[in-house]
Amino acid sequence: MPLPERRYVITFGCPDRTGIVARISSFLAEHGGWIVEAAYHTDPATNWFFTRQEVRADSLPFDVEELRTRFAEVARELGAHPGSWRVADSGERRRVVILVSKEGHCLYDLLGRVASHELDVDVAAVIGNHADLAGITRAHGIPFHHLPFPANDPEGKAAAFAQLRQLVDGHRPHAVVLARFMQILPPELCAAWAGRALNIHHSFLPSFVGARPYHQARSRGVKLVGATCHYVTADLDQGPIVEQDVIRVDHTDSVNDMVRKGRDIEKVVLSRGLRWHLEDRVLVHGNQTVIF
Amino acid sequence: MPLPERRYVITFGCPDRTGIVARISSFLAEHGGWIVEAAYHTDPATNWFFTRQEVRADSLPFDVEELRTRFAEVARELGAHPGSWRVADSGERRRVVILVSKEGHCLYDLLGRVASHELDVDVAAVIGNHADLAGITRAHGIPFHHLPFPANDPEGKAAAFAQLRQLVDGHRPHAVVLARFMQILPPELCAAWAGRALNIHHSFLPSFVGARPYHQARSRGVKLVGATCHYVTADLDQGPIVEQDVIRVDHTDSVNDMVRKGRDIEKVVLSRGLRWHLEDRVLVHGNQTVIF
Amino acid sequence: MPLPERRYVITFGCPDRTGIVARISSFLAEHGGWIVEAAYHTDPATNWFFTRQEVRADSLPFDVEELRTRFAEVARELGAHPGSWRVADSGERRRVVILVSKEGHCLYDLLGRVASHELDVDVAAVIGNHADLAGITRAHGIPFHHLPFPANDPEGKAAAFAQLRQLVDGHRPHAVVLARFMQILPPELCAAWAGRALNIHHSFLPSFVGARPYHQARSRGVKLVGATCHYVTADLDQGPIVEQDVIRVDHTDSVNDMVRKGRDIEKVVLSRGLRWHLEDRVLVHGNQTVIF
Amino acid sequence: MPLPERRYVITFGCPDRTGIVARISSFLAEHGGWIVEAAYHTDPATNWFFTRQEVRADSLPFDVEELRTRFAEVARELGAHPGSWRVADSGERRRVVILVSKEGHCLYDLLGRVASHELDVDVAAVIGNHADLAGITRAHGIPFHHLPFPANDPEGKAAAFAQLRQLVDGHRPHAVVLARFMQILPPELCAAWAGRALNIHHSFLPSFVGARPYHQARSRGVKLVGATCHYVTADLDQGPIVEQDVIRVDHTDSVNDMVRKGRDIEKVVLSRGLRWHLEDRVLVHGNQTVIF
Repeated sequence: MPLPERRYVITFGCPDRTGIVARISSFLAEHGGWIVEAAYHTDPATNWFFTRQEVRADSLPFDVEELRTRFAEVARELGAHPGSWRVADSGERRRVVILVSKEGHCLYDLLGRVASHELDVDVAAVIGNHADLAGITRAHGIPFHHLPFPANDPEGKAAAFAQLRQLVDGHRPHAVVLARFMQILPPELCAAWAGRALNIHHSFLPSFVGARPYHQARSRGVKLVGATCHYVTADLDQGPIVEQDVIRVDHTDSVNDMVRKGRDIEKVVLSRGLRWHLEDRVLVHGNQTVIF
Repeated sequence: MPLPERRYVITFGCPDRTGIVARISSFLAEHGGWIVEAAYHTDPATNWFFTRQEVRADSLPFDVEELRTRFAEVARELGAHPGSWRVADSGERRRVVILVSKEGHCLYDLLGRVASHELDVDVAAVIGNHADLAGITRAHGIPFHHLPFPANDPEGKAAAFAQLRQLVDGHRPHAVVLARFMQILPPELCAAWAGRALNIHHSFLPSFVGARPYHQARSRGVKLVGATCHYVTADLDQGPIVEQDVIRVDHTDSVNDMVRKGRDIEKVVLSRGLRWHLEDRVLVHGNQTVIF
Repeated sequence: MPLPERRYVITFGCPDRTGIVARISSFLAEHGGWIVEAAYHTDPATNWFFTRQEVRADSLPFDVEELRTRFAEVARELGAHPGSWRVADSGERRRVVILVSKEGHCLYDLLGRVASHELDVDVAAVIGNHADLAGITRAHGIPFHHLPFPANDPEGKAAAFAQLRQLVDGHRPHAVVLARFMQILPPELCAAWAGRALNIHHSFLPSFVGARPYHQARSRGVKLVGATCHYVTADLDQGPIVEQDVIRVDHTDSVNDMVRKGRDIEKVVLSRGLRWHLEDRVLVHGNQTVIF
Repeated sequence: MPLPERRYVITFGCPDRTGIVARISSFLAEHGGWIVEAAYHTDPATNWFFTRQEVRADSLPFDVEELRTRFAEVARELGAHPGSWRVADSGERRRVVILVSKEGHCLYDLLGRVASHELDVDVAAVIGNHADLAGITRAHGIPFHHLPFPANDPEGKAAAFAQLRQLVDGHRPHAVVLARFMQILPPELCAAWAGRALNIHHSFLPSFVGARPYHQARSRGVKLVGATCHYVTADLDQGPIVEQDVIRVDHTDSVNDMVRKGRDIEKVVLSRGLRWHLEDRVLVHGNQTVIF
């Protein structure tokens, strides 16, 4: 599969008014920018405007830094604040750190996608609070760190989280993926990785928050089970939802059957969410997401 | 479409043990019973056995009353209590009463299915706390009763519910369908119609219990909305779930769009649940359902 | 439900090049046009650019005719030919003519959507080659024409099609809906109604073209059945696809069960396709569609 | 996850008549057989009866060989021929051989399921006509055989197939999985592996038989793409279908995007089909399958 040509991706939000599209597209047009993909959205409830534009890098007469500098001017004009826009460069390879525990289905799935170049990213490291998944990780040529989180030992746990942060931040990852990592991140880590930490929760949120969602689902007698990929925030399982999906179950399905069927959904939901995040397709707005 | 031949439907539950299938099928075989469809299930958690058997009426040398008498003996032997089995006769036409408010999509859908003989039932009456849907109901040749439920008038409301009960019970319906009926049934009506009153709730329960679920869904930023058909119990939106389904939404969908998309799901989920109920395919077990 | 404010909808296609978005959005911006919704797409295989723009009518200082005149200039500049762009006015009420035969599920469904204002259109007439659906049509206050198509009588059939064309064209409809109309339109009608005649085919095309698709599906042993809404062309069941969906079936489903399950899919697929068509969301490009 | 207790699985088909269920269940009951799961089906079109029964091994006073001998008597009585029934023993570990080419997504997926014990089978060998997937296979501790199939060399190809047959048959596998194996099996291999060779085809059959189905799908403009798991027969892509599923695509999806989205469907469809096959849940009847 040939790599697509290098692109700059502008994601942008500002209060809605007339002329925004004209201003941005004229800015690009006057420099010869070739827009490969463009999407717009306005949220009437909050009167907020969103756009994402993919521009061929070789169509512009300057580099990404110059594009950022010049676009900052346009953004200022349109009333955007510095945190509400970004210019990404597809030429910069995406780095991902994956956090795991014992359950391997999401990790196996991600590693398979990376190995077959479907997800064209660098997995900088896999970090597990158990060592079960060290073998498969290293078979893919990826470093695995075993970092135990002692139960009933708040100080030990805090130390482990500090070490986790150091390990992760050393890679400056574009995404920290909690691939069925069973530890709840402390608020300071949620804050440090805000907008970059993606969790897969094994239920169709807001149903069945917290532990053992398949047991909760079985006990409520639902006819579908699901999975939710969301950004991690300090409120457990309450962060902005990136993607969800469901699969049908029935009375013949034990909790174990639900777990098995649900895994297929967890895997695709997490990989879709991660892909969209890494392609700068996800714009967070309050507790909601716009997916371009 | 030729009508299927007349059938007796046995639904049966008892504590699990070996030999139940042999006992029931031998009983049928020794009288020449031709089993058209048979399903079995055991719930390991509660050790309960379930079965549903459809037998051609003309294959048995006696009528449904005699079948009931003779099968009672088998049931007793197998430790079933009187409430845990039933013999239904497909020759007895099913009667349905539908309760509505102002929103017509579920009613239109049901009336269309009845008129095209897809749902081969008698709609004995439609009862609305508003009169909006009187016209379409009567155009189908079905009586419509307008029965207002005064707000902020407990006595008036209680009188309306008493009248509702009288109206409904006069038809001895096999199903009371709450087709977006916006009144909460009082506990005594829930008890009187237990196992016969089917509600359609416009969310994927247990998410978004209660009022304005699509507003709740929009505000939580979910990526799918759904609908749930469940038996009505005294606990609001907590009854045994018969059927659920979902449809994808995204950031471009306003609450009104979600309402519109959700309606298509409400309609099919309600009609599926009602069909299964009327064909004696739903066995309630605690707060769960077995759908044969 | 409050009606959304009046809007002008520009749909536009031209050979791709840089600066198209800038040109169109600048044109709108310089007249104060408030873009409510905008979508863009480029097909790399044919190097064709597509856009759809919804503009608030009250934001422009002129009426729709003037908008057409002025936009024609922009279109010419961008190399679009007269047939590849259009300006629609949401203030002009959409007229629909529905063609039926004996099977009523799609008609019941459409009439219910219209009656509940979900589809806010005028059904100018329903025309059937059988009279079975006259009653329900007239109960909705809509004229029904019974127009028999004699079998084995080519002249009689040609006369019937001529009369059909006259009846339909008299209403100048925005859409001619073949809601399980069982007659194959002659090429001259396909040509006359090109881009306006929508058919619902009861299979997931290109599987099971032609007659009795559910029988074909049962005989092939497929595990899903579907439906396809497409524009009618002179090649039977080969026109551009607007929407498709499927539903699961299994070995317990007879052909009749497949027919019943499939109807639920036919109804939603047709109504979605019709809505998108009437909202000018469907751009045909060769034998493919862009759905904005 | 605790292993379920050992079970004997009876799959059985015979011409329908009254008393079959009674005969089989009485046979089991008189030996104390504890039926864990039972399913029945009658195909009215061919008047054929099907059943599958899971019995706890420890509930019977004899071993699987004795069960086969005794059940053969029952089968004879009921008019079943030797090929239309079978008794499998869950205590016998399932062996699988996987055939691959260059594309790894299905192999990665299967290996992940095996490694996480979701699919509790022995992968005896992976055989590839290219060596690309040797590394990941061996990392899982599974032998990989590289067996090139020379193009434009009928004799060389025939020799390769002969070697393939020898390699595969040496493992006496319960399933031969064509996990995107790009070679068409010659008729004698189809015959030798009849009912055991499972292929994953990357389209929703019968649409898009043969090569490059995603290209065909893109060119036809379909709105969903799918995958089909079927038994291999001498007629290309015409064998009995075990499982199918679909995923939505739209005009923004290039062929490459369709390939990527379709892979997620291929993986789950193949793994579901393989699981059902290995659990003796698939009964082939003509060109159709009953899935219990």
